Amino acid sequence: MDTSKLGGKQLIGYRELAEGKEFFHSINPATGNESPIRFYKATATEVNLAASLADNAFSIYRKKSGRDKSVFLLRIADELAEVKTSLISVCQEETALPQARLEGEVGRTINQIKLFAALVFEGSWVDARIDTAIPDREPVPKPDLRSMLIALGPVAVFGASNFPFAFSVAGGDTISALASGCPVVFKAHPAHPQTSELVGKAILRAAEACELPEGVFSMIHGDGQSTGTALVTHPAIKAVGFTGSYRAGKSISEAAFRRPHPIPVFAEMGSSNPVFVLPGALKQNNNKIALGYVQSLTMGAGQFCTNPGLLIFQDEGLEERDIFLGILKEGISQATTHALLSASIEKAFSEGVNERSLNPALTVLASSQAAGKHPIPTLFSANYTVFDEDPLLEDELFGPSGIVVTIPSKNELIQFAQKLSGHLTATVHATPEDLVEYKELLDVLEQKAGRVLINGFPTGVEVSYAMVHGGPYPATSDSRSTSVGTAAIYRFVRPVCFQSYTASLLPDELKDENPFGIWRLVNGVRTNK
Amino acid sequence: MDTSKLGGKQLIGYRELAEGKEFFHSINPATGNESPIRFYKATATEVNLAASLADNAFSIYRKKSGRDKSVFLLRIADELAEVKTSLISVCQEETALPQARLEGEVGRTINQIKLFAALVFEGSWVDARIDTAIPDREPVPKPDLRSMLIALGPVAVFGASNFPFAFSVAGGDTISALASGCPVVFKAHPAHPQTSELVGKAILRAAEACELPEGVFSMIHGDGQSTGTALVTHPAIKAVGFTGSYRAGKSISEAAFRRPHPIPVFAEMGSSNPVFVLPGALKQNNNKIALGYVQSLTMGAGQFCTNPGLLIFQDEGLEERDIFLGILKEGISQATTHALLSASIEKAFSEGVNERSLNPALTVLASSQAAGKHPIPTLFSANYTVFDEDPLLEDELFGPSGIVVTIPSKNELIQFAQKLSGHLTATVHATPEDLVEYKELLDVLEQKAGRVLINGFPTGVEVSYAMVHGGPYPATSDSRSTSVGTAAIYRFVRPVCFQSYTASLLPDELKDENPFGIWRLVNGVRTNK
Repeated sequence: MDTSKLGGKQLIGYRELAEGKEFFHSINPATGNESPIRFYKATATEVNLAASLADNAFSIYRKKSGRDKSVFLLRIADELAEVKTSLISVCQEETALPQARLEGEVGRTINQIKLFAALVFEGSWVDARIDTAIPDREPVPKPDLRSMLIALGPVAVFGASNFPFAFSVAGGDTISALASGCPVVFKAHPAHPQTSELVGKAILRAAEACELPEGVFSMIHGDGQSTGTALVTHPAIKAVGFTGSYRAGKSISEAAFRRPHPIPVFAEMGSSNPVFVLPGALKQNNNKIALGYVQSLTMGAGQFCTNPGLLIFQDEGLEERDIFLGILKEGISQATTHALLSASIEKAFSEGVNERSLNPALTVLASSQAAGKHPIPTLFSANYTVFDEDPLLEDELFGPSGIVVTIPSKNELIQFAQKLSGHLTATVHATPEDLVEYKELLDVLEQKAGRVLINGFPTGVEVSYAMVHGGPYPATSDSRSTSVGTAAIYRFVRPVCFQSYTASLLPDELKDENPFGIWRLVNGVRTNK
Repeated sequence: MDTSKLGGKQLIGYRELAEGKEFFHSINPATGNESPIRFYKATATEVNLAASLADNAFSIYRKKSGRDKSVFLLRIADELAEVKTSLISVCQEETALPQARLEGEVGRTINQIKLFAALVFEGSWVDARIDTAIPDREPVPKPDLRSMLIALGPVAVFGASNFPFAFSVAGGDTISALASGCPVVFKAHPAHPQTSELVGKAILRAAEACELPEGVFSMIHGDGQSTGTALVTHPAIKAVGFTGSYRAGKSISEAAFRRPHPIPVFAEMGSSNPVFVLPGALKQNNNKIALGYVQSLTMGAGQFCTNPGLLIFQDEGLEERDIFLGILKEGISQATTHALLSASIEKAFSEGVNERSLNPALTVLASSQAAGKHPIPTLFSANYTVFDEDPLLEDELFGPSGIVVTIPSKNELIQFAQKLSGHLTATVHATPEDLVEYKELLDVLEQKAGRVLINGFPTGVEVSYAMVHGGPYPATSDSRSTSVGTAAIYRFVRPVCFQSYTASLLPDELKDENPFGIWRLVNGVRTNK
């Protein structure tokens, strides 16, 4: 790919702007090499222009039918497929992620777009409800009431560094917002600005081809907090989608709450995704579970929100315990090292591992023997009581590192689960007998996580109807939402009720004749008639 | 009703406690007379006990089937019906609301409970989704994923003074939370503590009859901010439902956001519910609209969240304008005066009217000629430009007062609508020709309100499937929710996904055999099989 064609500018509506003086460069995390392109940080004027154009576009875009929106989304998918090769080669240089992984991720991103296109084409997602009038009801007539979900307004989206496609420019947040009828102002992640520019331009080509109003999508650059804050506090912005660290998510939530009119923030802030291994499973499947755990922990250099940072088991001093720990140690020792996504992530990981190594309450169980300058996958072990004294140990350490937690008894194991904070996922490895005996554990875990798995590993998030990628605080800022799967669209809409409306003024979704044949609730009864 | 049987104590679980020293009395707003019963303000220990019992009850109550919950709700309805006469007589003394109105409100409250009972009995509201496994999918198998909505946890509910039944102890917030599977700690409104105690005890009799765990419902008293703050910041509380003033709603939102783990607050904070009268309607229906407006504005002494505090019309200097204004003036002049709900509401209203009377930008169009010590219904008029200089005029003034806003042209009328803040409702009076010409106005208004009405008045909120009683900030703290209608249940739940679960461990709603025959989304297709 000839990256010299990239401009390093803000993509604001259909314009390319670089009015500011501050800039940064894309850096190859594997080599430390800087790309020559200057990426200009958006000025306040540029942020304002992007938000204002989004606001202008909203009044037109929000009225587009599900069919029109699906055409737009499918066109985005096509435009991405068209430049797939360039995308992957540029992205590899910016993220050091392996080609196969990136190919999979582009495919997943395209499939995700197609899923949302199908969702809005079909149309039932708007939760149309019709209560017909009863004019002669006593003591007062019952009016005709019809409600459906409508788009909130322009959405600010902050991409994640660890999924440069699936959670970035044309990722789940952007696509679910566009599917709902909301324009998007995307703040590109400074760790992959070139990739972002290529994807942003693909979206804009699709918008132009579909003759959508300028401002339906914009993308701005920035490598500090100020661009994001300016965007989140702009009066035209009505909601925020974010994937990243707890610190950044918290800061964005704070800015949004401080507005004269606060707006919802859907921040996915990561978690340490506890994995419980129950006694029967430890006895029967210690080999398989230990190998699976190491693979899940080190996959993609551990840079997943669903990375299983806590492995908890009931230590009854059995022989199988030693086999289990032995395989874990062996697996971690043999883990390869990789460049992480950025120098700052590498630094944070190395510091975190260092800190844990110096913590007298933790023992280094094993660390990778691989040589090289990159961070060393490291597995710690600890007695469960340590978490009472130092609850921060439950926090995510982003990268290939976990803590093996030993607990002496079932009661204490369940108490440990009860004390857990909010997580994206919780996993249980169990035999059928374990499941009977530890039913209470599952009851507790469904209150702690957005997704509970039996005999699997949390990495690998299916994009589907039933997926929930969310969970109680601090995993996300709003446990009532998911950022993956079709239900992600519900973050960016609100219900509106039309009372005694003239038929011709009703949205098609609420007309008597149900032109799209969508599923509706008519006087409380589900029907697609 | 012999109120001497009332205890003035906290109803905490199945206990009655009054450990504190501070107390207040119920006051008859019509006479100023104090009831002899001391209502003790909850102590920190009592708040903690209520929240902790709710937390304990949650693990059992959340697992109750929709059928069990519907039995509980219907029993509450029965218990209320049983004591209806006492409820109304006590409530009249505490609120000065007329008997007919209170009878209607108790009926509405009971019907609301029955509607939620039917909703959870039927069961489809849980949004069950099933994506079946594809074990041989390449490159990775697709796991079995099943999601549904589950209860958040104990909910703190703050009742409103203006609906002592429908938005109070057994009102929409409490009932939708209980329907969802969440225990409730209710903070009684100090303006009707006797009524609250009677209703609270009815709920507890129902809970006991259904053998529900202690803590599924508690009610505490308090007449200041501290009890509420203690409740909202208790770690066991997972969400808040509130109906009341902007100031109180904002303070509760702030406390909830400041928690180490913030929780969602669903605060309905009132609005001034703009009513637009378009030129054709003014010509054809001036009489009817003016009479209807006065009735809506003064109904229940103007003490509704949906009270139409702004009446906007395009003043083209026509003869009909004078007729319209004449009827408005006449109607307000003849309006009767009533005691408002409490001394503090009367004070705030009188101060507000006074302040507006002294505002040189406003003219007193008419005020009630009725004598008496109670607040005087007052109608002001203003040129629309005033709102640019003093946006606070758009705020609700709780009580029977409104502002008639004159606007010279269609363009300015639409611009005025565009500048509106968030409201619970917006109304348009229009002829069919007006609707064609002012379509843009309706487009704007659906972005400003939770409910848009044509040729009606906003007071009178139907409790049904399609009702939306919500709206953009500052009408509510979360425009994505409604506090009236069956969709109110969605405030207190979150989705959870079960991956690769053993069939026997799945909730009934997600089992293959669909034992309740609920509507589900199976591989993206809606079915009740």
